[in-house]
Amino acid sequence: MDARRSQRLFDPLFTTETMRGIFSDHGRLQAMLDFEAALARAEARAGLVSTASAVAIGTQCRAELFDVDALAAAAAQAGNSAIPLVRQLTLLVAARDAEAARYVHWGATSQDAMDTGLVLQLCSALTAIDADLTRLSSALAALARVHAQTPLAGRTWLQQGPPVTLGLKAAGFLSAIERHRIRLAEVRGRIATLQFGGAVGTLAALGERGMDVAAALAEELQLALPDLPWHAQRDRVAEVATMLGLLVGTLGKLARDVSLLMQTEVAEAFEPSAPGRGGSSTMPHKRNPVGSAIILAAAVRVPPLVATMLAAMVQEHERGLGGWHAEWDTLPEICALAGGALAHAIAVVEGLQADPAQMAVNLDITHGLILAEAVAMALGEKIGKMKAHELVEEASARAVRERRHLRDVLLADSNVVAHLAPADLERLLDPRRYTGQAERLVARALAARKPEGDGSADA
Amino acid sequence: MDARRSQRLFDPLFTTETMRGIFSDHGRLQAMLDFEAALARAEARAGLVSTASAVAIGTQCRAELFDVDALAAAAAQAGNSAIPLVRQLTLLVAARDAEAARYVHWGATSQDAMDTGLVLQLCSALTAIDADLTRLSSALAALARVHAQTPLAGRTWLQQGPPVTLGLKAAGFLSAIERHRIRLAEVRGRIATLQFGGAVGTLAALGERGMDVAAALAEELQLALPDLPWHAQRDRVAEVATMLGLLVGTLGKLARDVSLLMQTEVAEAFEPSAPGRGGSSTMPHKRNPVGSAIILAAAVRVPPLVATMLAAMVQEHERGLGGWHAEWDTLPEICALAGGALAHAIAVVEGLQADPAQMAVNLDITHGLILAEAVAMALGEKIGKMKAHELVEEASARAVRERRHLRDVLLADSNVVAHLAPADLERLLDPRRYTGQAERLVARALAARKPEGDGSADA
Amino acid sequence: MDARRSQRLFDPLFTTETMRGIFSDHGRLQAMLDFEAALARAEARAGLVSTASAVAIGTQCRAELFDVDALAAAAAQAGNSAIPLVRQLTLLVAARDAEAARYVHWGATSQDAMDTGLVLQLCSALTAIDADLTRLSSALAALARVHAQTPLAGRTWLQQGPPVTLGLKAAGFLSAIERHRIRLAEVRGRIATLQFGGAVGTLAALGERGMDVAAALAEELQLALPDLPWHAQRDRVAEVATMLGLLVGTLGKLARDVSLLMQTEVAEAFEPSAPGRGGSSTMPHKRNPVGSAIILAAAVRVPPLVATMLAAMVQEHERGLGGWHAEWDTLPEICALAGGALAHAIAVVEGLQADPAQMAVNLDITHGLILAEAVAMALGEKIGKMKAHELVEEASARAVRERRHLRDVLLADSNVVAHLAPADLERLLDPRRYTGQAERLVARALAARKPEGDGSADA
Amino acid sequence: MDARRSQRLFDPLFTTETMRGIFSDHGRLQAMLDFEAALARAEARAGLVSTASAVAIGTQCRAELFDVDALAAAAAQAGNSAIPLVRQLTLLVAARDAEAARYVHWGATSQDAMDTGLVLQLCSALTAIDADLTRLSSALAALARVHAQTPLAGRTWLQQGPPVTLGLKAAGFLSAIERHRIRLAEVRGRIATLQFGGAVGTLAALGERGMDVAAALAEELQLALPDLPWHAQRDRVAEVATMLGLLVGTLGKLARDVSLLMQTEVAEAFEPSAPGRGGSSTMPHKRNPVGSAIILAAAVRVPPLVATMLAAMVQEHERGLGGWHAEWDTLPEICALAGGALAHAIAVVEGLQADPAQMAVNLDITHGLILAEAVAMALGEKIGKMKAHELVEEASARAVRERRHLRDVLLADSNVVAHLAPADLERLLDPRRYTGQAERLVARALAARKPEGDGSADA
Repeated sequence: MDARRSQRLFDPLFTTETMRGIFSDHGRLQAMLDFEAALARAEARAGLVSTASAVAIGTQCRAELFDVDALAAAAAQAGNSAIPLVRQLTLLVAARDAEAARYVHWGATSQDAMDTGLVLQLCSALTAIDADLTRLSSALAALARVHAQTPLAGRTWLQQGPPVTLGLKAAGFLSAIERHRIRLAEVRGRIATLQFGGAVGTLAALGERGMDVAAALAEELQLALPDLPWHAQRDRVAEVATMLGLLVGTLGKLARDVSLLMQTEVAEAFEPSAPGRGGSSTMPHKRNPVGSAIILAAAVRVPPLVATMLAAMVQEHERGLGGWHAEWDTLPEICALAGGALAHAIAVVEGLQADPAQMAVNLDITHGLILAEAVAMALGEKIGKMKAHELVEEASARAVRERRHLRDVLLADSNVVAHLAPADLERLLDPRRYTGQAERLVARALAARKPEGDGSADA
Repeated sequence: MDARRSQRLFDPLFTTETMRGIFSDHGRLQAMLDFEAALARAEARAGLVSTASAVAIGTQCRAELFDVDALAAAAAQAGNSAIPLVRQLTLLVAARDAEAARYVHWGATSQDAMDTGLVLQLCSALTAIDADLTRLSSALAALARVHAQTPLAGRTWLQQGPPVTLGLKAAGFLSAIERHRIRLAEVRGRIATLQFGGAVGTLAALGERGMDVAAALAEELQLALPDLPWHAQRDRVAEVATMLGLLVGTLGKLARDVSLLMQTEVAEAFEPSAPGRGGSSTMPHKRNPVGSAIILAAAVRVPPLVATMLAAMVQEHERGLGGWHAEWDTLPEICALAGGALAHAIAVVEGLQADPAQMAVNLDITHGLILAEAVAMALGEKIGKMKAHELVEEASARAVRERRHLRDVLLADSNVVAHLAPADLERLLDPRRYTGQAERLVARALAARKPEGDGSADA
Repeated sequence: MDARRSQRLFDPLFTTETMRGIFSDHGRLQAMLDFEAALARAEARAGLVSTASAVAIGTQCRAELFDVDALAAAAAQAGNSAIPLVRQLTLLVAARDAEAARYVHWGATSQDAMDTGLVLQLCSALTAIDADLTRLSSALAALARVHAQTPLAGRTWLQQGPPVTLGLKAAGFLSAIERHRIRLAEVRGRIATLQFGGAVGTLAALGERGMDVAAALAEELQLALPDLPWHAQRDRVAEVATMLGLLVGTLGKLARDVSLLMQTEVAEAFEPSAPGRGGSSTMPHKRNPVGSAIILAAAVRVPPLVATMLAAMVQEHERGLGGWHAEWDTLPEICALAGGALAHAIAVVEGLQADPAQMAVNLDITHGLILAEAVAMALGEKIGKMKAHELVEEASARAVRERRHLRDVLLADSNVVAHLAPADLERLLDPRRYTGQAERLVARALAARKPEGDGSADA
Repeated sequence: MDARRSQRLFDPLFTTETMRGIFSDHGRLQAMLDFEAALARAEARAGLVSTASAVAIGTQCRAELFDVDALAAAAAQAGNSAIPLVRQLTLLVAARDAEAARYVHWGATSQDAMDTGLVLQLCSALTAIDADLTRLSSALAALARVHAQTPLAGRTWLQQGPPVTLGLKAAGFLSAIERHRIRLAEVRGRIATLQFGGAVGTLAALGERGMDVAAALAEELQLALPDLPWHAQRDRVAEVATMLGLLVGTLGKLARDVSLLMQTEVAEAFEPSAPGRGGSSTMPHKRNPVGSAIILAAAVRVPPLVATMLAAMVQEHERGLGGWHAEWDTLPEICALAGGALAHAIAVVEGLQADPAQMAVNLDITHGLILAEAVAMALGEKIGKMKAHELVEEASARAVRERRHLRDVLLADSNVVAHLAPADLERLLDPRRYTGQAERLVARALAARKPEGDGSADA
């Protein structure tokens, strides 16, 4: 029996293959080994280690040479995974080059390998997420463009209000996603940074060559050299979590809106269908919003995980007790869930099946009441806002009570017809003509898009 | 390359083998299959299915017959793991008994299998946790008994105050653990309950036999039959999370206290040492509080996960969108972390190495100041609390300023010696004599322990 | 300008007058003063203080004699509110009885007053919540009874499924509320407990009389005497939070369901209307689900606050640093939000305006598809589940594609009519006849209700 | 009796007067009224309203003219505070100028007033926090400069390791605070943005003039004009929370470190003392870390509140149900706690009383063991790392066992003295000589500071 606790059963549902790869055991080991290999090279460049030793070490820094379960068992004793990894790596190197084995992990501490390894994984994850953000942005832009003038009911408090357009809805998400792209670039600039400080962050074990090794190591790994080691200052790491938390919030709203539009009674837009997707074991006709459900699950799970990362920042002195350990599974989980939610969002938006005809049907459900504002504003210009408001409120109440169309009630009201001609009323009660600045706002959002290829996130 | 995201690398550190087994993919599948097998038997008892069919179905309900990765891939499309499991099970049964295959999952819905499967897993987990609570309670009771009179500095705000005893500290934890045992029994009584309702909770697909099948099914699984299906009412499930959250909070305090006592500068008590345990790759002399760190990590991670379970309770109508999905990995994670923290706590308490001599040394660090209260109270009986308080405050300030022992300062103060003889002062300043009701309180806590074998949790 | 930060502007929206009173500054002060007065009486009973002194102290223990802002300013220096309160109380007593003033707060520490004061507030809050739970339970029971047979669409994933009844929905909530009543009684039994331990929990300052005073004090305050002081073991306090968190989760689901039913496009049930309630400044016709919104806000806010209480349990040694302080505003906030959500839920359920006619209209939206299961099950008994499932799935797809009623498609299918007569089909497709065990399940839930007056919560 | 729930009793402890002012009821009302006044002016500029009307409206937009409790009571019915505010404002204006009263709130919706009002409050809060960050940065820079070479024990896992310097510790915080200053400027650039969209975000009620009014309004309020209204896209608002969450995490670590250094047994640094500060009602000698406790309380409370803001982002369609309401008290709470924690941190750092002599004493507690690494590295260069490690590990174990100084054990070991002369050993075991690159790293952090007056946060 395979008694390893695992999330294999749900992972393909909740996250992407890319994220699973980056944050697999293999991915984690390889990132730490990349640190160890680069360290040896950097120390060779600084003259602390022979080039031959650096090569000998580098040759063994391949995750597939290591036994995950043995490392895990040893980590349970040692308290972290770098200690047994270094021990195992040293043995592997020693088997071929005893001299080189002396210099494995030279001058570094476990946290250097784990933190910098994590940074390398996060850089890969952010690259993947940035690419997906760009793709989602494109899909939203296309949706906004195509449906800039497609009216549907605006809904506040889950009650119909004046109309908006599907394009305007899309543009709102587009604008938010564009902000997330900017945030990602800002955060990337801070997290793509070497952690290397030795036992307590002074680089003391390397004597006078500490800074030279650090600078060369940063270069080897294509990471920035920080002003000083940051092992006990976790804001860089926690910030990745908060940025992704904001992103997942936006995606959660997207999923909520889509799932509400998909309701049997609303039926204005649908997730794309696919064979075997969204079926129910007992209700053969259903078309479940599976993508939205998974995004919403992420929107429930990620905020508390962000809180964990923030709470874990309180780490004692030069290495904390519990706080650091709390990060290990939490940040990968956030990345995985955010990556998965983003992938589902792309699928939902790219394949969204909008039904403008049904939107038009729904716009008439209230028999004109959602256009009451239009009438009230037009009347207000003539008889004052409060009076107009009262008058329309009364007419609306009557329309509801007598199950008549607002138009008919208003046309029967001499106070109204004294100021508004029937044609005016008809025009005011046409939802397509009461979408205000929707088209112009869509254009503004499209114009504000960051060009796809500006690469600022990769600078 | 194994590109499955996984926590294998850290799991042996954070949780127990028992929890890993219960919440493995295998464990999850088997629990659902146990439901399916019992359902077939219950329907046979109700006369809906032939006994032969029930046997044929039961024979295939073994997790090892299923391919986890194939199920996971299908679940990513279907939106849950029960749909492909049932499909696969039906094929397996059909290969041997086409008639029986008709009755696989008869009248049930995916959530019935997943929720009741979860209940079975939770029952196993609670049994394991209850046993460990009993063991921790015993260890704490032993500690409380042995050290009922061993004085050490009481510490408030991380500043030394009047003395307590190590036994009193242990008794405080013992008392909390006893309350957790009671809570566990209460919660178990509510969660050990069948979920079986069909598509929307009406059991409609089973016609008139719905309740009979439900009752037989509950009996088959040794679960309680609820008044009505609870698929959309998640309080039973969330309550397991809150109960474990409370437990982890207590364990977190235990770990914090132990790690503070282990500080190099305090050195009053230590986690047990073990080969390869708590070492550091660069500091060969250190004895790191690995167990405490892991418990503290759990105390950081579990509270937000509990918040997830509570937030996820808001599930729409007869089956929610996102909320239910958010539970799937979260509750097992909480169980795993709680189980791991508890196991580490047992190891820490059972092997705790207390150093009463060092406690005595530390009790003298303030040169008597921590006994100032004793003097103030004794003086207060004679000259009034406020006046005594001021007088002792002044003497304490002078003792600090002049780096003298409080006793010497007090002996030189005529206002004091007018009311307290030197021998009285000596006695008042002896920490062993100012532990108040500690011993009696320990006795009370020991007397209040629930007998180990009363089995109320298993009732 | 009133520069006090405050929540006055929103409090009447989010919570009840009762909760505002209990957790007002006045309420908090009075609870601590009740502790001080009872302490003096208990010490008089134990012979430590004269009866006259106890009376003199008790006379001044009235919150209106204290200046909240002066206390707050002093608390900002002292680090808690009990220190300046005791100082001020001592001055008040001293002004009339210098002898009595010596015995104010005798042998107690700040936390004794603050924790026991909190317990007294919590007991009041739990009494109020228990009464409201009983009231909500009655309202739900009435709703369940009246609408036990009122069919409406069951909805899973926000898609219509087979029908349920409104009574069954109500019974699900009823059952959950009944469990919350039981939980409240269990929790109350643990929290209604004296905290009294002196500086570090040993009662040392009271010499031999510590336990006697504690016992008398518990009696005076009608609280249980615990086995030992629990100042640093916060599970009793945190448990109030978790219990209320579970309750708010249930209420959040109730509000979500109601607000979904109130949607313009669904319109099956409504919050009661009231003058000025749920209006919109621009949309005069709307009837906003204000009560549901506030409950849902609580369901968003409370889970993280529960996490705060759990995280705060990690308090160092005999009095923590930060953890305790984090509780002070958090638990009252949870009580206030839970109390407010409960009050809104009562208003929503007691005044719920259900529209069975509209429910019937909506049941026909899918042209029979939601009854597909009924047909599939009936057919399955004759031709096997999988075959029946496929056949009905195909018919359903055709019904959608050709916009025909499922009945008509099925009647045209020779494979169907070979096994089901037209009258059978008509019956199978009648939603009122496919509510399964709904009525019986409602009856079970009603029968399981705890009698209102059994008082177990007050035991 | 004042039965308003309030936090007056604790607010001066947890937050600053500035924050209390900004987020008082008065502050909230005034910010909304500033929006209303600016809206009238903007509409006058756009020719929709006469200048006289705009003046008449502006004259009444003073918070002191409004009755908070009456507004609160009305808000409890209306569901938000803007509806009664606008109603009240209209009455006030009408009393003097009936014509002007028609144009109060013209074309706007409640959320426009509430969101833009919130933005104005947040801008004030961020300005205050930015100023305090600059001040804290200065204090940390001074500390780093003065103590760049002051050695104290590095501590990992709360165990002593090789030495660091107090300046290096300060520089780590300085570097983090500098990153927070940059983050604040980035976030400010996004949140200082007008929200104005009318009922559903289309500005429909203003006809063709919508964008002109919006542009003029943004100018009047000195806010940026967004590409489109963001009422339902909450990332801008939530981001303020995440940024402050990161800041509080850093401050929490600062407080944890200071409180650990203040422990009676460590006594290396202290919060500044002040009359009445940090006293205990029963322990007259204590000097409690009150500032640190309050910061730590914020570090416990803020992360879950950030989670609330992230979870609340899932707001339905054009205005959500519960999510928006959940923000109202939560974001002010975060600002208040962050502002308070920051103020306490300034006080702690500016007044920090370091005791280098005690640091030196503590550096010798382990009898040289914390320098074992230095010896191991030096030996390693000669006999290989692993062999050196083993040899020093053995010597360390013996030093512990025999309670001897590591130096003496090493000097007695022929394997050691063969490679290291006594003078070398003496030098290696001098903590002042094993602080590695500490001084240089401090210089780097100081050099990387953002100039105080560059104003980028205010751009």
